[in-house]
Amino acid sequence: MNYKKLGVILGKIMILEGVLMTAPLAVSFAYRESFKNIIAFLIPIIILMTIGLLLQMLKPERNHLYQKEGFALTASVWILMTLFGAIPFVINGEIANYIDACFEIMSGFTTTGASIIEDITTLSHSSLFWRSFSHWIGGMGVLVFVLIFIPESDDGSSMHLLRAESPGPQVGKLVSKMKVTTRILYLIYLGLTVLEIIILLFDKPIPGYENEKFFFSLLATFGCAGTGGFGFIPNSMQLFNPFSQYVMASFLILFGCNFSLYYLLLIGKLKDVLRSEEFKGYFAIAVCAVALVFISLIWRFEAFPQDYTTEEAFRHSFFQVASLMTTTGYTTTDYNVWPMLATTTLVLLMFTGAMAGSTAGGIKLSRIIIAVKGAYINVCKMISPRYVPKAKFEGKTLEQKTINDVFAFITLYFFIFLVAVFLLSFDPVNGQTVDIVSDAGAYTVKHGFYSNFSASLACISNIGPAFEAIGPYASYAPYSAFSKIILSLTMLLGRLEIIPVLILFNRKTWKM
Amino acid sequence: MNYKKLGVILGKIMILEGVLMTAPLAVSFAYRESFKNIIAFLIPIIILMTIGLLLQMLKPERNHLYQKEGFALTASVWILMTLFGAIPFVINGEIANYIDACFEIMSGFTTTGASIIEDITTLSHSSLFWRSFSHWIGGMGVLVFVLIFIPESDDGSSMHLLRAESPGPQVGKLVSKMKVTTRILYLIYLGLTVLEIIILLFDKPIPGYENEKFFFSLLATFGCAGTGGFGFIPNSMQLFNPFSQYVMASFLILFGCNFSLYYLLLIGKLKDVLRSEEFKGYFAIAVCAVALVFISLIWRFEAFPQDYTTEEAFRHSFFQVASLMTTTGYTTTDYNVWPMLATTTLVLLMFTGAMAGSTAGGIKLSRIIIAVKGAYINVCKMISPRYVPKAKFEGKTLEQKTINDVFAFITLYFFIFLVAVFLLSFDPVNGQTVDIVSDAGAYTVKHGFYSNFSASLACISNIGPAFEAIGPYASYAPYSAFSKIILSLTMLLGRLEIIPVLILFNRKTWKM
Repeated sequence: MNYKKLGVILGKIMILEGVLMTAPLAVSFAYRESFKNIIAFLIPIIILMTIGLLLQMLKPERNHLYQKEGFALTASVWILMTLFGAIPFVINGEIANYIDACFEIMSGFTTTGASIIEDITTLSHSSLFWRSFSHWIGGMGVLVFVLIFIPESDDGSSMHLLRAESPGPQVGKLVSKMKVTTRILYLIYLGLTVLEIIILLFDKPIPGYENEKFFFSLLATFGCAGTGGFGFIPNSMQLFNPFSQYVMASFLILFGCNFSLYYLLLIGKLKDVLRSEEFKGYFAIAVCAVALVFISLIWRFEAFPQDYTTEEAFRHSFFQVASLMTTTGYTTTDYNVWPMLATTTLVLLMFTGAMAGSTAGGIKLSRIIIAVKGAYINVCKMISPRYVPKAKFEGKTLEQKTINDVFAFITLYFFIFLVAVFLLSFDPVNGQTVDIVSDAGAYTVKHGFYSNFSASLACISNIGPAFEAIGPYASYAPYSAFSKIILSLTMLLGRLEIIPVLILFNRKTWKM
Repeated sequence: MNYKKLGVILGKIMILEGVLMTAPLAVSFAYRESFKNIIAFLIPIIILMTIGLLLQMLKPERNHLYQKEGFALTASVWILMTLFGAIPFVINGEIANYIDACFEIMSGFTTTGASIIEDITTLSHSSLFWRSFSHWIGGMGVLVFVLIFIPESDDGSSMHLLRAESPGPQVGKLVSKMKVTTRILYLIYLGLTVLEIIILLFDKPIPGYENEKFFFSLLATFGCAGTGGFGFIPNSMQLFNPFSQYVMASFLILFGCNFSLYYLLLIGKLKDVLRSEEFKGYFAIAVCAVALVFISLIWRFEAFPQDYTTEEAFRHSFFQVASLMTTTGYTTTDYNVWPMLATTTLVLLMFTGAMAGSTAGGIKLSRIIIAVKGAYINVCKMISPRYVPKAKFEGKTLEQKTINDVFAFITLYFFIFLVAVFLLSFDPVNGQTVDIVSDAGAYTVKHGFYSNFSASLACISNIGPAFEAIGPYASYAPYSAFSKIILSLTMLLGRLEIIPVLILFNRKTWKM
């Protein structure tokens, strides 16, 4: 294990986190917040910078990183970012419990958006900013960002880091140099972010929050771009005007696309974009899901409390499908009480997620497509032993190894998800009731199996809000510290797509 | 496609079903039932025999069956058995709707035990017998039975049938001749069945059912042996004496064991039995699950209605774990209202099931063990590319192909399960309330996501009773005809372990 090299990179990440924390610090100054709020960021910045710079003095004997080192490094970077990222909340006292604070910022970095805050109005501007900003940072990945500044080695070390942090079954370079690829991806990310902020500024301000227009556009966009989903005013995005809700839903769909499609678009290869099977599948599933949810809201063959106009029904269908399919978790209405067809559609979208190579979580559509094709090939092979598989995915022949890896991944995904459901069943909160007040009225809901089931799913797929007692108008606060640690780990496993975390916690990794 | 050979075997199966139906016909005579009850079995017997014998006149050009033919044959045999097996219920009018009757008998043959009967006392003795007897027939498999009488070809045709019908990732011959293996397995099955009937006869009769002692012992044993679970008096096994409940639970555990272990035991290889990893895993999980459920019932850290003595708590824990792990579905108490730790444990057991090569459904423990080992091997390979996997299962080196097949199977299992959940979300029953009366008192429960989720799981894993509105004291009757067809297909996919059904419905199978 190349400890010194790992130390150097971990140090670089700490410096980066310190630099990133100056943003909420600036917000704190801008809003003339109290001394406590300012030192809440100043202290961790100083600690991070000091340790980070000290670690730069290590002189690694070799520059190369093996695959296992790259993967273990990635997992530890994310844990480290969380342990330090939680400190501000504890110092300013807005999330006094350190485990709660870790849950909250892990939820931020992994772009989950699951929150333990029961009253969002108690948070200061700087805390709100840091939470939402963590989505933006985590969406694209931190190591990917660092890669831009690390001198590229020709031995593929950086490729290991990118593979460990990027979502999806395959990672392709857009151009021959890794660093250039990364830069292009980050520029696209930045471009889309700036575009959304600007468009959101065209909307009327939210009544009662007239002075916050720019701040809210910024925060809402951070959540969309990273497909995170932390709210910053009561009731998530319910109070936003329909214009903003349509804009956000549209950008969510855009951020759920594989970023390399934008690169193809930029270099004028529109045909290649439209030929992408995953893109076609993504588009088709989104349209079908919106239609199904919309029909179930309009036809009312099953009773539910809200009484939407046709426009509202369409807007909420579009917004919730976009939000849950891209594993964001923003909400405009209480979907928890919707008819079964609508909620079941949303639950299934929580499993699938959006496209690989986007900022979204979940299993990813490319894996679903590969699994279905793989199953078909397997059956064909049994029908005719001389059958030579000719299945292709995205124009390339689908290799058996890729198919096997996808099957293994999906199996592990379900196993980890079910283990989390099991561990949550020990929580004393089970069986207790929660009072909910939403646009569907006031009602009481019991914390049952569906709550734990959907909470685990919402965490492993990096979504945030779930169903029943963990619905969009409830919070994760009632869970015990043990459950919160389990769910934080589940988020990390989901964000890094399982393997890096398993490698970090495998004894073999540290033996040699 | 060797249509003529398929026709001959299908004919043999029809003759067999006709012969098997003489058993409920005899019951009908013995209990001096009405003319309608007698012709209910007589008519289908005559039809089955006639068509079956006519089909024997086909002269196939080749005797050999290809793998695809064997698999497609197996799936069609089960569908045919169901279509004819449902006729008696329609003729005697006890299940007037043909789709309901098909659901009921498919549930019987696949040893699911999911029932649409709302008042079990309306069924005649002959109908009760036919339902429970179908468990016993389906438990071991019908084609396996036919194999005993078919002259064995040396080309492995019979092996395809056995592979398609037997549960588990691998099928091994016990002795060199397939037919002898099959005979041994059926003799063990028969032996255990007779043993359980005799032991159950030692119990005091159930108050109010003094004359039914032998009949009930027979029916209860059919359900245990096939791990089916149809009840035949109100409230499943709740009214049975504790002695019978302990006996049944113990036999359920025995019927959940791989039958080849009994063969090893019979030829004096006890050591090999104790060395079996799947057996050790099965035993360990059963003990842990009983302990977890027992603790959650005794400690009462979560409120639930029943007030058990320690003995009752242990008995119900033991019985329900045995019943759900072996995917039987008999119940002695209303587990639907139990604490979360207990119910979540039961839900997970519904996924895993018992051992391969038993009469139980579910994913099977051997697959779970292989998947976990396979994941570990995959991670080790990533840690060290020069790593040579040395993982073994049951003393043999675990080949990558086996691991890949298991991953593919588990992925398909979850996909089909989730598709069923989605299709159930269209049912008009969603959102409606159901009144339940059980040993936990009278309560009302809403048909929610948990109902559809657990109903699909209970069908694909061949269990029967589920949770919430489809709990042990409710029935599948409120589902629409569409949902019942979907759930029947789900049962079949679960019983035949997916592949044969996919092969039957693949266009490629019928092209060549």
